[in-house]
Amino acid sequence: MTRYDELLKNAFDPESFRRVGYKVVDALADFLAASTPESRPRVLLYEDPESMARSWEGRFGAGPTTDFPDLLPEILARSNDLLHPRFVGHQCTTALPLAALGGLAGQFLNNGSAVYEMGPVNVAMERNLIRWMAGLAGWNDGADGVFTSGGSIGNLTALLAARQAGAKGNVWKKGVGSEPPLAVLVSEQCHYSVRRAAAVIGLGEEAAVSVPVDERFHMSPEGFERAYEEAVGCGRRPLALVANACSTATGSYDDLEAAADFARDRGLWLHVDGAHGAGALLSPKYKHLLRGLERSDSFIWDAHKNMLMPALITGVVFREGRLSYEAFSQKASYLFEKESREEWYNFAHRTLECTKTMMGLRLFISLAAYGTDFFGGYVTAMYDLARDFARLMREAGDFETAVEPESNIVCFRYLKRGETDLDGLQKRIRRAMLEKGSFYIVQTELRGRRWLRCTLINPRTTIADLEALLAEIRSLA
Amino acid sequence: MTRYDELLKNAFDPESFRRVGYKVVDALADFLAASTPESRPRVLLYEDPESMARSWEGRFGAGPTTDFPDLLPEILARSNDLLHPRFVGHQCTTALPLAALGGLAGQFLNNGSAVYEMGPVNVAMERNLIRWMAGLAGWNDGADGVFTSGGSIGNLTALLAARQAGAKGNVWKKGVGSEPPLAVLVSEQCHYSVRRAAAVIGLGEEAAVSVPVDERFHMSPEGFERAYEEAVGCGRRPLALVANACSTATGSYDDLEAAADFARDRGLWLHVDGAHGAGALLSPKYKHLLRGLERSDSFIWDAHKNMLMPALITGVVFREGRLSYEAFSQKASYLFEKESREEWYNFAHRTLECTKTMMGLRLFISLAAYGTDFFGGYVTAMYDLARDFARLMREAGDFETAVEPESNIVCFRYLKRGETDLDGLQKRIRRAMLEKGSFYIVQTELRGRRWLRCTLINPRTTIADLEALLAEIRSLA
Repeated sequence: MTRYDELLKNAFDPESFRRVGYKVVDALADFLAASTPESRPRVLLYEDPESMARSWEGRFGAGPTTDFPDLLPEILARSNDLLHPRFVGHQCTTALPLAALGGLAGQFLNNGSAVYEMGPVNVAMERNLIRWMAGLAGWNDGADGVFTSGGSIGNLTALLAARQAGAKGNVWKKGVGSEPPLAVLVSEQCHYSVRRAAAVIGLGEEAAVSVPVDERFHMSPEGFERAYEEAVGCGRRPLALVANACSTATGSYDDLEAAADFARDRGLWLHVDGAHGAGALLSPKYKHLLRGLERSDSFIWDAHKNMLMPALITGVVFREGRLSYEAFSQKASYLFEKESREEWYNFAHRTLECTKTMMGLRLFISLAAYGTDFFGGYVTAMYDLARDFARLMREAGDFETAVEPESNIVCFRYLKRGETDLDGLQKRIRRAMLEKGSFYIVQTELRGRRWLRCTLINPRTTIADLEALLAEIRSLA
Repeated sequence: MTRYDELLKNAFDPESFRRVGYKVVDALADFLAASTPESRPRVLLYEDPESMARSWEGRFGAGPTTDFPDLLPEILARSNDLLHPRFVGHQCTTALPLAALGGLAGQFLNNGSAVYEMGPVNVAMERNLIRWMAGLAGWNDGADGVFTSGGSIGNLTALLAARQAGAKGNVWKKGVGSEPPLAVLVSEQCHYSVRRAAAVIGLGEEAAVSVPVDERFHMSPEGFERAYEEAVGCGRRPLALVANACSTATGSYDDLEAAADFARDRGLWLHVDGAHGAGALLSPKYKHLLRGLERSDSFIWDAHKNMLMPALITGVVFREGRLSYEAFSQKASYLFEKESREEWYNFAHRTLECTKTMMGLRLFISLAAYGTDFFGGYVTAMYDLARDFARLMREAGDFETAVEPESNIVCFRYLKRGETDLDGLQKRIRRAMLEKGSFYIVQTELRGRRWLRCTLINPRTTIADLEALLAEIRSLA
């Protein structure tokens, strides 16, 4: 038996897999048990990127070096602990541990799901999940869509469909240059992936024309008009309007009714970037924030944001499902009666990916295990917590919020008495916090000023953790 | 305690996770043990897509319905068994079970890796893996790149960089319409994602001009010239040439030296689509197939093809690493001294994804556990097996191959004596095989004729399995 054969035999040996699998599960369970402020005072042990990179040099070679269970403790210790109640930073979510086990099954089976035969179970699950999402948006069976690898790719997919629908000629075949210059109206507060998508698909970054926002970071009806005129003034024909539900920086929900009215009046495709906030559809208390979504042409929903799913899993849903076939092909409506419509199950026609992971599986099994009300309860709890956090700061008096939170994102700053450089102060606080690691928070710029920023995305974070956060900020300042 | 609180407590309870984790590992280990022709006569139990989709309707509701361990047996039974030695179909690979455990840890931690702070360990691992891939291509530290979610997105990323490098003006900002029409020269046998990328980025599908191939499905030097003239004749300026290493349908490796010569002479960006075949760099016996790769400007490498990794993990590597910063931004060389170059660790600047999964982790831990020679041995064994399979058919006399295999992809047809409709025969064989499920194979069209197609991607497939495949084909015919 050669060395290769020996390693191969071991790699696919069921008992070896079972043994190592148990060890990995044990290490993760123990890690989870210790993800508390008492047991683990640091959410993140910050290290310089260069030295971090160097420390992993030479860790593999021609032959076997280290077994995974022996590497895992170091991996865990040096990672960002998203399970920790004091992880209150970016919108990347604490993952449901069960969903990660779904991910294990998915990666073990590795059923590429862009072609039905390769991943029949996952394709069927995704079919049902998309219908469920469409139903929550108030749509019927005419709606359809796909799951894709993240919100940036989701927004890109929707804008490709909008480009196709709005073009006068065959833009897929002939290129963007065959059209008069086009424009997409986007919120001044849109996620960077939206502007980027405009550049990627060849319209140019300048084609993403900003709609100004009001003091609560919502696009204003006057703003729609102004952006439209600006685009036309530059010789561009607007083809789509992109609304936030909610925005990334402050978690503000645009008025989708107003956006839908404007889009209807001007014949624009309305796309709603619900990457972060579409999850509120599950909350009886907060679903009103998405009123008007049913009048959009497309929206995206990242289950790896407000549904506790490990990345990546983004639903891209179209009110008129047949339009989802046009994102990656020329307009070919004659096909729908015959071919593509029957091929809903071969997602490759409709996603950027040709090999697609079993992303639906982990959402499906999580919904089966916990139920939709659990996820609704989660959104409600997190959005409530953000409001409680804002109230806490109002009552404390030495903090200000950029805006009353609408979702689970809170932007705020510490008003240290006598401090003349408040922007510099927030930066120093954030840096000190990163290095100390007691909490993980981020920062942003709004109205030309610097703000600390939290996303309350970990269901184990409590108001007591946030009280401790304010105390820590005062102490670091 | 509310129902939500109760479910939440259970969801993050370490002992509950441990218990369910063991059960999942057990189910997968048992499934692996039974992935043999003796224990499991069917690789895939084919079901109609509609009825498959319907069978998963109503499987989740407002409250908990089914625990994951209770769903798992059905998921396993109805999926495509890529671990089965008689899975010899698409290029989606049998996954190393250990890598799936790496995936479990990655999804559990959910460290989004587009921003260093969010996923420091994985970012560091990916940095080392990209350097390693670059080194295998014969490049030094000036090379750089990123991992992204699959080959289609990888090719898109490289073509965006090529678009930027080849444009005369600021195409990122101004759009494709601001340039004279551009073209990309692609092999007639290129993967569909390449043509599609040309349409996605706004050049138009027509901008992907085909280079004809010879009888072995390689681009011919005369073909380069012909395609170039054709593009110019249509008023387009060619900016890139895309070579296959190897092609999807037949696994043919283009002559990269010839491609590099032509690209140099005409000032074209040379991109090598090594999604499937770059893994041969690991094989002392077959790495010669990639001779000339070191002269390309960029290449992609899917570790979920020839490196046994669960999807998705694609390396996009650039000879001049600084160009990897230009795929998603305007040309801004002045930045490199100051900012972006220092920001290699914030991958979001250079990938389509804004949240990026911990994809490098599972490749890194697999290399640490088994060593690079193991993966080289795997490629060698699979490529050898394809040659053995072709010889077997040659000796049998009642089969023909479309071309002598260069990689682990084999296209062939059964020459049933007296059969006048050979194309129809292959289709019927493939359909009967799909429904019987004893093997999973696919089909393709070449030179206007229909061929059966196998990818020998499962390291547990033996020549005896392939002998059995030929016998099965004869029997089904």
